[in-house]
Amino acid sequence: MTLADVLPTMGRCLHTRLEPDIWPLGTTLGQDGLVFAGVPAVSLAAQFGTPAYVLAEDAFRLRCRDFRAALPEMEVAYAGKSLLCRAVLRWVMEEGLSLDVCSAGELAVARAVGFPASRILMHGNVKTPEDLKAALAYGVDRIVVDSLDEIAELGTLARYPQRVLIRVTPGVDAHTHKAITTGVDSQKFGFPLSTAMDAVSAVLAQPSLRLAGVHCHIGSQVSTVAAYEETARRMVSLLGAVRDRFGVVLRELDLGGGYAVPYLTGEPGFDLVGYAQRVRVAVSYTASLLGLAVPRLTVEPGRSLAGPAGVTLYRVVAVKGSFVAVDGGMSDNMRVALYGAKYCVRLAGRSSCAPLRTVTVVGRHCEAGDVIASDVGLPGDVHAGDLLAVPVTGAYHHSLASNYNQVCRPPIVGVRDGIARPLVRRETEEDLAARDVG
Amino acid sequence: MTLADVLPTMGRCLHTRLEPDIWPLGTTLGQDGLVFAGVPAVSLAAQFGTPAYVLAEDAFRLRCRDFRAALPEMEVAYAGKSLLCRAVLRWVMEEGLSLDVCSAGELAVARAVGFPASRILMHGNVKTPEDLKAALAYGVDRIVVDSLDEIAELGTLARYPQRVLIRVTPGVDAHTHKAITTGVDSQKFGFPLSTAMDAVSAVLAQPSLRLAGVHCHIGSQVSTVAAYEETARRMVSLLGAVRDRFGVVLRELDLGGGYAVPYLTGEPGFDLVGYAQRVRVAVSYTASLLGLAVPRLTVEPGRSLAGPAGVTLYRVVAVKGSFVAVDGGMSDNMRVALYGAKYCVRLAGRSSCAPLRTVTVVGRHCEAGDVIASDVGLPGDVHAGDLLAVPVTGAYHHSLASNYNQVCRPPIVGVRDGIARPLVRRETEEDLAARDVG
Repeated sequence: MTLADVLPTMGRCLHTRLEPDIWPLGTTLGQDGLVFAGVPAVSLAAQFGTPAYVLAEDAFRLRCRDFRAALPEMEVAYAGKSLLCRAVLRWVMEEGLSLDVCSAGELAVARAVGFPASRILMHGNVKTPEDLKAALAYGVDRIVVDSLDEIAELGTLARYPQRVLIRVTPGVDAHTHKAITTGVDSQKFGFPLSTAMDAVSAVLAQPSLRLAGVHCHIGSQVSTVAAYEETARRMVSLLGAVRDRFGVVLRELDLGGGYAVPYLTGEPGFDLVGYAQRVRVAVSYTASLLGLAVPRLTVEPGRSLAGPAGVTLYRVVAVKGSFVAVDGGMSDNMRVALYGAKYCVRLAGRSSCAPLRTVTVVGRHCEAGDVIASDVGLPGDVHAGDLLAVPVTGAYHHSLASNYNQVCRPPIVGVRDGIARPLVRRETEEDLAARDVG
Repeated sequence: MTLADVLPTMGRCLHTRLEPDIWPLGTTLGQDGLVFAGVPAVSLAAQFGTPAYVLAEDAFRLRCRDFRAALPEMEVAYAGKSLLCRAVLRWVMEEGLSLDVCSAGELAVARAVGFPASRILMHGNVKTPEDLKAALAYGVDRIVVDSLDEIAELGTLARYPQRVLIRVTPGVDAHTHKAITTGVDSQKFGFPLSTAMDAVSAVLAQPSLRLAGVHCHIGSQVSTVAAYEETARRMVSLLGAVRDRFGVVLRELDLGGGYAVPYLTGEPGFDLVGYAQRVRVAVSYTASLLGLAVPRLTVEPGRSLAGPAGVTLYRVVAVKGSFVAVDGGMSDNMRVALYGAKYCVRLAGRSSCAPLRTVTVVGRHCEAGDVIASDVGLPGDVHAGDLLAVPVTGAYHHSLASNYNQVCRPPIVGVRDGIARPLVRRETEEDLAARDVG
């Protein structure tokens, strides 16, 4: 036994291991820094520039398969709002998932890849007449109605039998960030249980609509299965109440998504297998109590599939005291400023054995709140020109990106089997100028 | 005397007057709702659709003139990040203001209208090599350097005599929102007073650079003049210290911007005349104490010029209990979700004498935090199809807009003398698809 066995940090770097659970499947540490699905970060930066979103195709596809394997009897619909482009929708399609969209714009991407209309749901608390017309023209299977105004509008526009789900607020508080808590009565989505019958009645009164079931979504970054179990019980009870009141048996129950994803090592993930078992039991037990057949269940993961598959690459532009300033910021990652989200940051373009020091990685925008990560450890020799990587940036980064300070939005680069290809190209000054007509 | 004189609300609506101080100059109330610079809101919505940003040219220009009149001996530089498009920069140019930009992208817009390089400053805590090269190629008058790394980079790229200001953090807390407080030492911008001499030394060591002066910016939405007065004193003292240490007399002092704009009636505005007087005295008194000539002062209003000139028009899509849901949201107004900003909302397309009721106006995005205004009064008969207007949306709305939920960004419609014209056209699905190459 040598001293290095007793003190395993002796003789080598303290930070030569990848943080567990947060890097995309297939990420490795090479001589020249991080390698994503066989493609070195330095090559990606050289070919595509920085900042850049890197998306690991296999990581995304594997999560799709995880969901299908854990929930074989359920419909798994990808929540497109988390990350939407044609390539991603092709993966979703090939993996046999369904898709939920929230707007005519999201549907346009689905149309561009020929996503089967029979596997599309349209959501949203506000669907403009244009959104509804686009959904009807494409023939999406189910429209999730959110208000009496919308039921009336859709009833007028649709032709029989347009299948409809009613969005219901089950009154379950999933104890997540206020901005993304959607299951309680004081927020804007759907019908509280107390008025859900009015919605059922309104849909049934529309000759063009066929009521297929009910839908709910309790929030985002929910880490406990118990909230879903309780939701499932309440929603099945609602199906019973609808049968008792209207004599109508609804066969579909959409339980939404919101499954937590760890952004930092050690944060709670989501117990998908436990979810499957406990929700299955909650639904079948409640249904049997009420003498109902078990409804077809739909779940809607978005972040769970896209988030962990993505990494953002930045270039360090300046180091000033404890600030490490990079060439991106709140224009490509709005989640820190919006929700106080926390991220891990890692040197990506070389290896370093310098002791870690605590720094704050800040963005390029003229706003003090434009921070990527506060108080994170980076090698003490970090300097201008270094590449940094931030994991778990696949969901709600590209979606929420802006042109703040007239900064062009990053590309999305897909990586798989050692090959990188652009999925979304970098924005250019010409793109930004295209709408400026004055 | 009639009863109507004693009870002035008798016989007419309670809400037939415009809220003071927050609607653009030239806004009136007509039979069919709001009229902006002679153009009815209903006409704007019919011609340009909703949501739409409306920008009152005269209101913008008048604020430019207010600044020039109040501060005749100072340089007034428009902070382009607040709202940038070619038409706006033409107004700025014609009104004789200077311009500050933060990126190659912002500079590209200035270049497109031939904005004189002699009146442009480039700012920013992170300027990439591309930003610096663009600034040098266009010959911008002053570059405000923010770090030693940047001074070294710029020194290498520039040719003598590139004029430079040093961004300094004066250590004055302007007591505003944490995300927009920029004058204190714990944030990412510039050099604290304690290390400013290192920056001076570094600039003086670069043969290609000519140190012209110093720059600071203490935050946004600052309503008290005292913070600026104290800042001015500290910055002039710094000029004295530079002279004493290096024997160099710096003639330029850029005091930044951040002047508060009321978003709601009754909120504090900014006492521009008081500011002019007190800052003038603070600068000249401190300078005379130190035996310095009074430096040339630059100020940088952005929001003050653009904010009050803008109004956003929305269409109501659904009313559900106390929620009034519109066809825009956090994709066109990020400030509510980012800063908890508060806005006034008004019925814009018709008159109504219905009693006001308290509602929450929510946006179309799939996020509970997507709210336009909580607990505001709207006529009780507000219904789907109604037009709503939100004032003071000229600054940091278009700038921070996103394509969340693949929603196309609104146009900017300029209004003046009864004529409306598109300054920025509405985004289309084709625009969104242009970068999707996978």
